[in-house]
Amino acid sequence: MDWRKHVATALDGRHPGLGHRVELGLHALILYSALSMGVETLPDLPGWAQTLLSVSEIAVVAVFTAEYALRLATAPAPGGYARSFFGIVDLLAIAPFYLGLVFAGFGLDLRAVRALRLLRLVRLLKLARYTSAIDRFASAWRAVKEEVVVFGVAAVIVLYVCALVIYQFEHDAQPEAFASVFDAMWWAAVTLTTVGYGDVYPVTSIGRVFTVLMLFVALGIIAIPTGLVASALSAIRAKEAAEDREPPRPPATDRN
Amino acid sequence: MDWRKHVATALDGRHPGLGHRVELGLHALILYSALSMGVETLPDLPGWAQTLLSVSEIAVVAVFTAEYALRLATAPAPGGYARSFFGIVDLLAIAPFYLGLVFAGFGLDLRAVRALRLLRLVRLLKLARYTSAIDRFASAWRAVKEEVVVFGVAAVIVLYVCALVIYQFEHDAQPEAFASVFDAMWWAAVTLTTVGYGDVYPVTSIGRVFTVLMLFVALGIIAIPTGLVASALSAIRAKEAAEDREPPRPPATDRN
Amino acid sequence: MDWRKHVATALDGRHPGLGHRVELGLHALILYSALSMGVETLPDLPGWAQTLLSVSEIAVVAVFTAEYALRLATAPAPGGYARSFFGIVDLLAIAPFYLGLVFAGFGLDLRAVRALRLLRLVRLLKLARYTSAIDRFASAWRAVKEEVVVFGVAAVIVLYVCALVIYQFEHDAQPEAFASVFDAMWWAAVTLTTVGYGDVYPVTSIGRVFTVLMLFVALGIIAIPTGLVASALSAIRAKEAAEDREPPRPPATDRN
Amino acid sequence: MDWRKHVATALDGRHPGLGHRVELGLHALILYSALSMGVETLPDLPGWAQTLLSVSEIAVVAVFTAEYALRLATAPAPGGYARSFFGIVDLLAIAPFYLGLVFAGFGLDLRAVRALRLLRLVRLLKLARYTSAIDRFASAWRAVKEEVVVFGVAAVIVLYVCALVIYQFEHDAQPEAFASVFDAMWWAAVTLTTVGYGDVYPVTSIGRVFTVLMLFVALGIIAIPTGLVASALSAIRAKEAAEDREPPRPPATDRN
Repeated sequence: MDWRKHVATALDGRHPGLGHRVELGLHALILYSALSMGVETLPDLPGWAQTLLSVSEIAVVAVFTAEYALRLATAPAPGGYARSFFGIVDLLAIAPFYLGLVFAGFGLDLRAVRALRLLRLVRLLKLARYTSAIDRFASAWRAVKEEVVVFGVAAVIVLYVCALVIYQFEHDAQPEAFASVFDAMWWAAVTLTTVGYGDVYPVTSIGRVFTVLMLFVALGIIAIPTGLVASALSAIRAKEAAEDREPPRPPATDRN
Repeated sequence: MDWRKHVATALDGRHPGLGHRVELGLHALILYSALSMGVETLPDLPGWAQTLLSVSEIAVVAVFTAEYALRLATAPAPGGYARSFFGIVDLLAIAPFYLGLVFAGFGLDLRAVRALRLLRLVRLLKLARYTSAIDRFASAWRAVKEEVVVFGVAAVIVLYVCALVIYQFEHDAQPEAFASVFDAMWWAAVTLTTVGYGDVYPVTSIGRVFTVLMLFVALGIIAIPTGLVASALSAIRAKEAAEDREPPRPPATDRN
Repeated sequence: MDWRKHVATALDGRHPGLGHRVELGLHALILYSALSMGVETLPDLPGWAQTLLSVSEIAVVAVFTAEYALRLATAPAPGGYARSFFGIVDLLAIAPFYLGLVFAGFGLDLRAVRALRLLRLVRLLKLARYTSAIDRFASAWRAVKEEVVVFGVAAVIVLYVCALVIYQFEHDAQPEAFASVFDAMWWAAVTLTTVGYGDVYPVTSIGRVFTVLMLFVALGIIAIPTGLVASALSAIRAKEAAEDREPPRPPATDRN
Repeated sequence: MDWRKHVATALDGRHPGLGHRVELGLHALILYSALSMGVETLPDLPGWAQTLLSVSEIAVVAVFTAEYALRLATAPAPGGYARSFFGIVDLLAIAPFYLGLVFAGFGLDLRAVRALRLLRLVRLLKLARYTSAIDRFASAWRAVKEEVVVFGVAAVIVLYVCALVIYQFEHDAQPEAFASVFDAMWWAAVTLTTVGYGDVYPVTSIGRVFTVLMLFVALGIIAIPTGLVASALSAIRAKEAAEDREPPRPPATDRN
């Protein structure tokens, strides 16, 4: 077995000697990296912890860069890997660090660098490489995609129309909360999803009557896709269970 | 092919030369027109933008008026088109502009004109002319219409009864928030849809106990129609899928 | 046809000459009576309107008293009617008025009389006499009763346990909002139904962590009965539709 | 019948003379004990009530200790009972009292003792010994366990990613409400479950746009497991109903 095969099987968890160890180590790094993004934001973080986080981020990027290089080197067709879904994810997982260095070199401000850091979350997608349950979810999605898109478009139109109507009713009474139709859309979205923070709400009688009518009609339009995905998932599970019970029959022969 | 046929096929997207271009152009105008209603409401809109919006509204109305006239002229039976669903929608889509001119001519105040403008949203219904998924939704609706109406009436009665009861409990403690049964209905609707803005809530012990009981009993009555529509949609989708799989059988012949 | 038969058929909407007129008139009275309970609560109601409401309430009670007396006189077994579901409802619909007179005669305070008035809402149950869709709902309820009771008991236990736990975490930080476990139950009910008024919420870290865990685990327990009723209703509708399609077969004869 | 058999059947509700009386008495004690934990927290509780609660708690623990000792003495294999699910529950139901005594003996502070008291809630699990509907719920759970775990992990990841993103958008505008990613997770959990207390909400335009997108995408991910459990429960109920209708067929014999 040449070194390419050793590396490729180790990365995929099929190496005869190492087994899943390399794979599990990479998973642990991904989770550590995601968690460190949260810990970074803690106020009053002591200096040593900040240093530790910065150093470990460099180490994480080094490992992921090595992983990317090795996958590129051992892939049957390097160009195919680089253009595949996981090839792009692997690249996006390390790109923010190097782009951040470049930006800092050009003296760009911190906000842009900070927004770039969010790209590091792409690393979580690397976990999907090994999850088989994703397949079932994907086929449930394919089954209901069309309805969900129709309802998604309907939801956006409903939000916009509700915002236009409530703006006419509430703008004069609350010129700050309902300053424009786009502020009214924030109200409509928070209301129709039943979150209801209470930062904006109608105060006029006609605005309240409209809100109640809107809630009863529109809740259905927004809540239905959930039910569709759930029932599609159930159907797929039932079908898989039926296939598991019935062993594949031998080709039918005319025994009669 | 005479000019009537050219125009009729162009509007329906079946013209041999123009194809879907006229249709898509009209769709773009509808979306532009709906979006401009929102942009109008932005505070601190510069003068040139206001002028642009007013001028483009005139252009949009001119195009839709021409469309209405052409559809009327090329329809096999003009009276039939004028009384059809989309004939009425096409008329309502341009009527507000002309009515607004008339109202302004008679010196009516701005509020009435502003409310009229909302009628322009009817234009969005023109998009439904080309959406086939609407059919599936319509047959799901027919399947569950009866239950939804029963639950709708039940929901209104539940809201009213809950409002009467909570008014008795909370009016003395919060004479402003629960000023009348109709204020209490606002509370009941916001609570039973689980929006819960927090602008009105019970403070007495008995009012709170009633609220909890009400929520557990009444949530079901309001939430069930959603589930019904979702399962009816699933059933229709399953039926269509079954029909797609089974090719239409040849007319049965008595082979026995 | 003697007068008893005339009256009995008129009340049931099966009278050859009057048809549904008496029945519809009684329905209108029920709705008027329910609506007038709401209008009574409007502040700043002019004196003539208050007089109108009081006088019309006396008229409504007179009609319902006459209806009760006539049903009692024309029933095949007066005792059977008086003890039937609708016999009790018909009595409860007029009892509050006469009890209010008695209470006022004994000089009892207004609060007791006001609470009594809520009993007038029982009149709405009289509408159920003519609604056939109630049957379908009743058989759906029978199908899922057992699960709903189990989940209802589970919901009460979950609320109580959550209230006990959050009280331990939040009482010291917010001694007023979480004054006792029964105040904490109000918070638990408002949170688990996702109403979330915002009048009470946890502020300690451990209280917030517990709230999040509680929401994810307990939302299922409270939301499931709704889904059960919806799917039971769908099943019953499907069964009825199947029975409508298949005409009742002739008694099977052994034709082979 | 020796005394062991008398005791064992009395505890299980199968004693020829006592029947379910001992069992029901133990249930009443469990409910009394759970309720007294709530009553204890009432402020301004008179001294005699506090004394009553303390004394009755000692009595409850004495009864449960006796029950534990008797079950241990009459079990066919005492070690088997002690290691069984209900053996551990029975032990945990009395342990807090004795541990509290020990802690008080060592002069430990009241907070630790108070947290220990929560362990008394384990007693409620003793009720599950007699509830057969738990079985149906357990098999529904087994049917959907895999999906629920996948969605649970997905929900945690979604919460964390949403918290990281909103922190970037809102931290500068509201440094106190969004002090760290872990505060942002509280916002994300309260929003995605649609509770929406209104204690924390986005105020920047980009934060609001992100919130709306997040709600539409993520509500599905969190709401779906509920639908799955409900449909699994329906399927199990349907299967049980089918088995009840079909009497067990005699073993198939080859009659042809």
